Amino acid sequence: MTTVHAYAATSPSSGLGLTTIERRSPEHDDVEIAIDFCGLCHSDVHAARSEWGSTRYPLVPGHEIVGRVTRVGDSVTGFALGDRVGVGCMVDSCRDCESCAEGLEQYCLVGMTGTYGTPDRRHDGETTQGGYATSIVVNEGYVLSIPEGMDPAAAAPLLCAGITTFSPLNHFEVEKGDAVGVVGLGGLGHMAVKIAKAMGAEVTVFTTSPGKVDAARELGADNVVISKDPDAMAAAAGTLDVIIDTVAAPHDLNPLFRTLRLDGALFQLGLPADPMPAVNPGLLIRKRLAYTGSLIGGIEETQEMLDFCDEHGVVSDIEIVTGDQLNVAYDRMVAGDVKYRFVLDVSSLKEDA
Amino acid sequence: MTTVHAYAATSPSSGLGLTTIERRSPEHDDVEIAIDFCGLCHSDVHAARSEWGSTRYPLVPGHEIVGRVTRVGDSVTGFALGDRVGVGCMVDSCRDCESCAEGLEQYCLVGMTGTYGTPDRRHDGETTQGGYATSIVVNEGYVLSIPEGMDPAAAAPLLCAGITTFSPLNHFEVEKGDAVGVVGLGGLGHMAVKIAKAMGAEVTVFTTSPGKVDAARELGADNVVISKDPDAMAAAAGTLDVIIDTVAAPHDLNPLFRTLRLDGALFQLGLPADPMPAVNPGLLIRKRLAYTGSLIGGIEETQEMLDFCDEHGVVSDIEIVTGDQLNVAYDRMVAGDVKYRFVLDVSSLKEDA
Repeated sequence: MTTVHAYAATSPSSGLGLTTIERRSPEHDDVEIAIDFCGLCHSDVHAARSEWGSTRYPLVPGHEIVGRVTRVGDSVTGFALGDRVGVGCMVDSCRDCESCAEGLEQYCLVGMTGTYGTPDRRHDGETTQGGYATSIVVNEGYVLSIPEGMDPAAAAPLLCAGITTFSPLNHFEVEKGDAVGVVGLGGLGHMAVKIAKAMGAEVTVFTTSPGKVDAARELGADNVVISKDPDAMAAAAGTLDVIIDTVAAPHDLNPLFRTLRLDGALFQLGLPADPMPAVNPGLLIRKRLAYTGSLIGGIEETQEMLDFCDEHGVVSDIEIVTGDQLNVAYDRMVAGDVKYRFVLDVSSLKEDA
Repeated sequence: MTTVHAYAATSPSSGLGLTTIERRSPEHDDVEIAIDFCGLCHSDVHAARSEWGSTRYPLVPGHEIVGRVTRVGDSVTGFALGDRVGVGCMVDSCRDCESCAEGLEQYCLVGMTGTYGTPDRRHDGETTQGGYATSIVVNEGYVLSIPEGMDPAAAAPLLCAGITTFSPLNHFEVEKGDAVGVVGLGGLGHMAVKIAKAMGAEVTVFTTSPGKVDAARELGADNVVISKDPDAMAAAAGTLDVIIDTVAAPHDLNPLFRTLRLDGALFQLGLPADPMPAVNPGLLIRKRLAYTGSLIGGIEETQEMLDFCDEHGVVSDIEIVTGDQLNVAYDRMVAGDVKYRFVLDVSSLKEDA
């Protein structure tokens, strides 16, 4: 076991404070990673504050992890000391079910082991602890290679926000000339715009905020539609092949369905705590539309996404924070005051300690 | 013009009465059909009673038409005098848009011309009149060949109930070994069971009525689940690839989504007049499920369906009625008292007249 510095929540209202946690020594197929950066995902806030109701404390959040390999188990073949690596939302799965066999570990029928907050069935059964920490030990099957040319801090959010938006676009086989809609312009939305553009799509951003029009265009959006403007929505009717909806608050999808073409699909990625308004099935029937969703991506697809982003120069737009700024950063995330992702500089933890 | 016998509604409360209507003389590319049988679809009831609110009277319903060719225009190449033919839910479309070009005339971007109740843009602009009549004239592009070996009365419902259920199963590429769910066991549902079985699928019928278990098994269902039984629904969790939902009343889809496997799809075919309960997007996200719909089928696909049904010995289970029984039959349809489709014997119209 190794004792490492970390920021943890100890109760729903504690906020995050500096502490230490134990990491296991690397087993045969494990990789030990010295963490350099960890992105701040909105899920981290929900978990730290137990807003989904099931958090076991203490909890170290963080599943957008980038660092360098410091030790490898004796059977590790894919990674060597000093390699730039990443860890996303999962650190294990059953490795045996249909989904795992197909490289869709995120849909493991037994249930994936989340990078934080999940009992670690394969080891001690203790709750996994995430990336707001100076190091982590992960089975090599769940470790990604981060291309050396990428800015490691700006690459961190690719491990969750990037793959969560890449996977549905990739699954729908978006290609040059397709028309992609993106709903919401936060951490996920801004990645969806960049990735869809890199795939060659024409991108339309839907936002409720007229103040975000310029920002959307700066990210590469070809069109921006103010979703509260019925005329603008009517003008967009029947123009899109696929919509990536990143809004995690309840909202009416029916006006968005009207903007899709025959056989179009709307992927909902955010999971509101309250019920969504009812869907009008007539809209689905008349154009054979699909209302669907998608959960991060498998390990192989995550590597594919990282290589795709490296090839196309895509990273996240970030603001770097230190450990002592985490609580303020959480409040700013809740207020939507970030363009577009906070990333924790983990070197600050050693200074704090 | 030719004057023909027909049963028409003249107001929402008139019921259906014997009358005469005019049919145009066949143009160059038209086929004149002496109608032998016409299925009674639930849509006919809605239209005759103006339950969708827009019926123009008088109205002759009927879009499950089987008869024989009596005249052809001089440029008709696909049909000859005496051929056994059918007409389904549409008699025209723009023939020019993307959808029409792909053989998806039902999704015509200008709007298909329904077999009844739609202004006939290409001719006189008058409301089209359906198949409760002794003959009809239709452009050959919208006429189907009915295999000579098929019972013409039992084939009639294939033109709407058959294609409406075949198309989503075909679109989803259902094949031997797939697990198909069918919700509701009426005109559409019983066709879905027969067609899915003919495709080689294992079929599970969901019904609220314990009294329908035996009937479902007689139709070929491998499993029957009483959808109000939480234990039975839980036992079916994660077992199905695709669900054909034929229920046209509002109902909660979330328990059905739980019965789907990863990448499963639920096709809703019925369009309730009242809003559906809200969908839980978490169920879609966690298994990448699609909530989708589907509208009848294109002309080419309808012919494919007829040939498939001929090859597999699939027709509808029917009860034949005469013209003077139509109003009673409508009341029985509303009460769900039919196994599984009424078919009007059109020869009775001449006797009535």
